Amino acid sequence: MPWTPSGIVTLLTDFGLRDSYVGTMHAVLLSRCPQIRHIVDLTHGIPHQDVAAGAFQWAQASPYFPTGTVHVAVVDPGVGSERRALVALDGGHAFVAPDNGLLGAVLGEEARVFELDLERFALPSVSRTFHGRDVFAPAAAALAGGTPPERLGEPVSELQPSPLPKFARDPQTGALIGEIQSVDHFGNLISNLPGDELTAEKSGLVCHLSICGRTVLLVGTYADAEDGEPLALVSSAGFLEIAVRGGNAATFFNCGVGEPIKMEFSR
Amino acid sequence: MPWTPSGIVTLLTDFGLRDSYVGTMHAVLLSRCPQIRHIVDLTHGIPHQDVAAGAFQWAQASPYFPTGTVHVAVVDPGVGSERRALVALDGGHAFVAPDNGLLGAVLGEEARVFELDLERFALPSVSRTFHGRDVFAPAAAALAGGTPPERLGEPVSELQPSPLPKFARDPQTGALIGEIQSVDHFGNLISNLPGDELTAEKSGLVCHLSICGRTVLLVGTYADAEDGEPLALVSSAGFLEIAVRGGNAATFFNCGVGEPIKMEFSR
Amino acid sequence: MPWTPSGIVTLLTDFGLRDSYVGTMHAVLLSRCPQIRHIVDLTHGIPHQDVAAGAFQWAQASPYFPTGTVHVAVVDPGVGSERRALVALDGGHAFVAPDNGLLGAVLGEEARVFELDLERFALPSVSRTFHGRDVFAPAAAALAGGTPPERLGEPVSELQPSPLPKFARDPQTGALIGEIQSVDHFGNLISNLPGDELTAEKSGLVCHLSICGRTVLLVGTYADAEDGEPLALVSSAGFLEIAVRGGNAATFFNCGVGEPIKMEFSR
Repeated sequence: MPWTPSGIVTLLTDFGLRDSYVGTMHAVLLSRCPQIRHIVDLTHGIPHQDVAAGAFQWAQASPYFPTGTVHVAVVDPGVGSERRALVALDGGHAFVAPDNGLLGAVLGEEARVFELDLERFALPSVSRTFHGRDVFAPAAAALAGGTPPERLGEPVSELQPSPLPKFARDPQTGALIGEIQSVDHFGNLISNLPGDELTAEKSGLVCHLSICGRTVLLVGTYADAEDGEPLALVSSAGFLEIAVRGGNAATFFNCGVGEPIKMEFSR
Repeated sequence: MPWTPSGIVTLLTDFGLRDSYVGTMHAVLLSRCPQIRHIVDLTHGIPHQDVAAGAFQWAQASPYFPTGTVHVAVVDPGVGSERRALVALDGGHAFVAPDNGLLGAVLGEEARVFELDLERFALPSVSRTFHGRDVFAPAAAALAGGTPPERLGEPVSELQPSPLPKFARDPQTGALIGEIQSVDHFGNLISNLPGDELTAEKSGLVCHLSICGRTVLLVGTYADAEDGEPLALVSSAGFLEIAVRGGNAATFFNCGVGEPIKMEFSR
Repeated sequence: MPWTPSGIVTLLTDFGLRDSYVGTMHAVLLSRCPQIRHIVDLTHGIPHQDVAAGAFQWAQASPYFPTGTVHVAVVDPGVGSERRALVALDGGHAFVAPDNGLLGAVLGEEARVFELDLERFALPSVSRTFHGRDVFAPAAAALAGGTPPERLGEPVSELQPSPLPKFARDPQTGALIGEIQSVDHFGNLISNLPGDELTAEKSGLVCHLSICGRTVLLVGTYADAEDGEPLALVSSAGFLEIAVRGGNAATFFNCGVGEPIKMEFSR
């Protein structure tokens, strides 16, 4: 399938909104590619250099865009070092990011990955500190203008793996051991346990979910719990999520990213 | 008047900008309606589940857009419960929101309101926690693509009333009793007393405004007061507003939303 | 060169993102100029009434946009007073701002400046507190719609000077005395010393940079320093910048905007 840009570019960074860094990336995109119709800011509130947090948000939001979208993520502790700048094509979407695990979290088996040719596609003068402006935005502009990913550099066969934690299954009991991988704006604790494990309930098993030494009620929706009561449900991203109705689960449990969570089954 | 979309969609939520929830709403809008030209983020900084704050901001900003604009507000404590999802048409603008008072604050007498048909207009799989993505964005995309509001569901005759406070008039003295309905980014205290009451001054009456036991100087503009001095003037939204020149009135008076304010008249 | 709008408008304010003030400016722009293709929010996080901070960000970002862009900055302690509203044309870009130094920081020698004719170009009713909506957005809409700057008002020969600090050179030693002019989201301290002074090193001189009584290592990139170690390099804007690798220089040095910084040379 040839690369057909949709005119949409998304941005995700840890730059914050206080400075004009993000606006400057918009400027480079619009200067180099007048065909861009929409630049969508996924978020610029990723904690400073937190690649895993960026990978989580990127993986959540990017699939909802139309094919032909160019997705740029810049959470880049290695800026100025020798780490590679990568471009990828997967499922009709293009991705641009430093090689530090961000791409590992969003790409599937069929993805094709290329190392960006800085000589040809970066700005003429590349700073040591702002590759969002000088390297990644120009690459995205080329893609959005119709240059196919394979024209941006040489193929790459290995890239940094996803920083997102994987859950484990106890081979004896079948219990799942996972952890909290994101805390959202509302204080909801989003684990890495897949929500479809709850279907075990349909086959006669009962699920028990525990975090911080406490078993949490499994419900269908926030409204099924009492105000101020902790509950677990399937998050909008398909993971098990711990919430407190009308409250803040992160505060309630006094925990955050990395906290272990366990799902056990009984008859 | 037939529904003629302008290609503009506005969003107002309590989702914050740290996660990619807002970006995902943009994604659904652009995926389902390529004709959208502009998505404007009115604000995503409404305090968690504060319907009144959302209603206030929505009522302030939406009238300034061109007709044909689709306005989406998602401040939704009842997500996952049986509360209805509504679509409305008023003055050539379309509105989409849960039925919890948001629409009550923006619609006039002539508005037509419909209950969104979830079977036909929501995403195929609706999560229990993210109706911004699964219900409200798809409805807005249908409107922006030209589907008229009356095609999105059955007419509704009653909806939840506006949560915004109303002021009272003392029948004996003519004094107005209101309250602070919003504190803005600058710490200005925006009351619900209408600024045009000041025209009473033209008919020979003198206005006295008091808050927190203190009478506040009525001025025409910030520059009419001394630095650090509290003052009252007509806000940009037409309400009486308490400010401190070069300062922060919320801090100065140590008060916030709900604080009573009184306007009296004398000769 | 005649004024040819690009369809891009940028906004920079101290309004924050909590209220719908920024959304309302978008509304006025889109209502009055359907030809606008992109509205880019440079930042709305300028500290309250901090004209110098606004001027710094505006000067950084605006040059990266294509010619024909309209740049609007509203950091406006004098709103409601007699301060003028100005429109300028420089290098094919148009600028709109109150006359308080913002324009002084972005315009070059060749710029042409005009005092906005409020009677003709502001909204019919101008509030005392929100000229972003009532004065500056309508002026920007006129420019984006093709009205040339010189048609918006009478020429102005003098305007308020830039609030940004200038560095000094010690005539005896050649040392440069500057100060920190911005602290970014990452805590990097951006000085007003030009990075190209480092080329002195090429002619056999060694540079020594000191701040808060401490000499800081000059490096090429963040990766050249140890974790937690302070360093100095040329920022993306071309100024000398003090950073801490993997840390926060503002916290490390416990200093901020206005802190003196000195660059000395030896053989």
